[in-house]
Amino acid sequence: MSLLVVGSVAFDSVQTPAQCRDRVLGGSATYFSYSASYFAPVRLVGVVGDDFPVEYVELFRRRQIDTRGLSVVPGGRTFYWKGKYLPNMNDRETLEVHLNVLGSFQPKLPDDYRRSDYLFLGNASPRTQLAVLDQMTDPRLVVADTMDLWIREEHDELMALLKRIDGLVMNDSEAKLLTGEENLVVAGREVLRLGPRFVVIKKGEHGAMFFSAHETYVLPAYPTPQVVDPTGAGDSFAGGMMGYLAACGNFDPQTLKRALAYGILVASFTVEDFSLDRLRGITRDDLEERMTRYRTMLSFS
Amino acid sequence: MSLLVVGSVAFDSVQTPAQCRDRVLGGSATYFSYSASYFAPVRLVGVVGDDFPVEYVELFRRRQIDTRGLSVVPGGRTFYWKGKYLPNMNDRETLEVHLNVLGSFQPKLPDDYRRSDYLFLGNASPRTQLAVLDQMTDPRLVVADTMDLWIREEHDELMALLKRIDGLVMNDSEAKLLTGEENLVVAGREVLRLGPRFVVIKKGEHGAMFFSAHETYVLPAYPTPQVVDPTGAGDSFAGGMMGYLAACGNFDPQTLKRALAYGILVASFTVEDFSLDRLRGITRDDLEERMTRYRTMLSFS
Repeated sequence: MSLLVVGSVAFDSVQTPAQCRDRVLGGSATYFSYSASYFAPVRLVGVVGDDFPVEYVELFRRRQIDTRGLSVVPGGRTFYWKGKYLPNMNDRETLEVHLNVLGSFQPKLPDDYRRSDYLFLGNASPRTQLAVLDQMTDPRLVVADTMDLWIREEHDELMALLKRIDGLVMNDSEAKLLTGEENLVVAGREVLRLGPRFVVIKKGEHGAMFFSAHETYVLPAYPTPQVVDPTGAGDSFAGGMMGYLAACGNFDPQTLKRALAYGILVASFTVEDFSLDRLRGITRDDLEERMTRYRTMLSFS
Repeated sequence: MSLLVVGSVAFDSVQTPAQCRDRVLGGSATYFSYSASYFAPVRLVGVVGDDFPVEYVELFRRRQIDTRGLSVVPGGRTFYWKGKYLPNMNDRETLEVHLNVLGSFQPKLPDDYRRSDYLFLGNASPRTQLAVLDQMTDPRLVVADTMDLWIREEHDELMALLKRIDGLVMNDSEAKLLTGEENLVVAGREVLRLGPRFVVIKKGEHGAMFFSAHETYVLPAYPTPQVVDPTGAGDSFAGGMMGYLAACGNFDPQTLKRALAYGILVASFTVEDFSLDRLRGITRDDLEERMTRYRTMLSFS
């Protein structure tokens, strides 16, 4: 099944308690597409300036990521984010954001992208996400991400979006903010009532929760001793999940649960280094090896 | 196998964002023994004042909890704790502590208790925990709890204790404090090096992690929509775990993992009401039913 992602491609400057990196490759569509590419070909829609190195485009292409949807704005500068992680490596503060070319980006899908079967709407304003959705012809599965800013400032548009998507992926603080509920089980079920057929709440180092009409479950994160940079973990999770679903071509409950697990495992690699540095060094076999360990960890006779 | 717990029996006054309870039955030995009693008979060593209602003693006895080791100090008052939970229901602040009879308690084990096979040393000063251990004759499995106060103020005694126990149960913030490590996988492995053969790090609503020389794993908490009062969850966890181990009479890796899961499930009931109010209404069958759901939740084909 064809898989399309619309999201950001960025330069990130990241400070962790131990190390810093300046202007490394980042962005939701970057992490999503690279992670999904372990399972299925991906079509990427995003925007960069002409400061974006051609070697990064090559990096995508080498992994079957179709970059015809990546617009390059002549004379423009690529979206830039600078952030700092607190010692717990979970909380972070944003030090600088320059939207640059992303500020005026109105995604226009190439004609053949419109018939993609699976669509992931990376974090963007619900207005933009809806505008993308309007360009699609009968997608089989639409999943979106969102963030606190849109919950606060584009509430009505977000509500409209929720009625038109199949799945929503959000983090725990966003689920609490959207519903006013502190208990995540209650919050997840409340979000379901707003429209999506399933909801995934990401809990960072604590894993992810899944909600549908018939199921509520939680899967823990894979316990890695080496958390270098959590940036992109959520988008890697979504990429692994959607990539696996697209490869399977169905989304029955067992497939969805395996997809969540693959999302968790790809993310566990992502956090082990900055940018895509760790992911670039792994193969599908490495993912399968970690999956075997993960299954063993969660099974008891 | 015989199971002995030494810990506190208390009156708790608890404030949550939604409700309050005044002077309800609490304490580590209370939660531990009641939870363990679903699996195996328990011997309880603790101290109360003569303000302690006989109906609570009866409550223990009806669940095969041997209370011959529960000292009653004439004219003394029972240990009292008053606390308040923040809206996240995870963090709490202590508003009042009156040690009362617990302040001068030096546990003395009845003769026949000394040969107990399984011992749980509830949170107390390492000095007191060592004094209990010294009274034991060849126990098969010794597991202890501790807290930030002792890590800070009785560090040497705690180090001595760690060399003499089989297992340590602690929460995530304590593991970080003891090791200076923020990553819990690293922290758990560091604690192993201090002596115990296994370490369990409790993560509250996020479950528990297990560490031994050959294994590292994490099991999520059971997702309950009804978290009324988290008090006693950690001791219920330890009680379910140790009770199950005592019932099995072995502690091979698979038995330990099942024991952790039972601990998680008993704790998931405990938090659904104040004091023992929820636990008092459940049967072993209710635990088994939740176990079936928990296994299903964690398994994927």
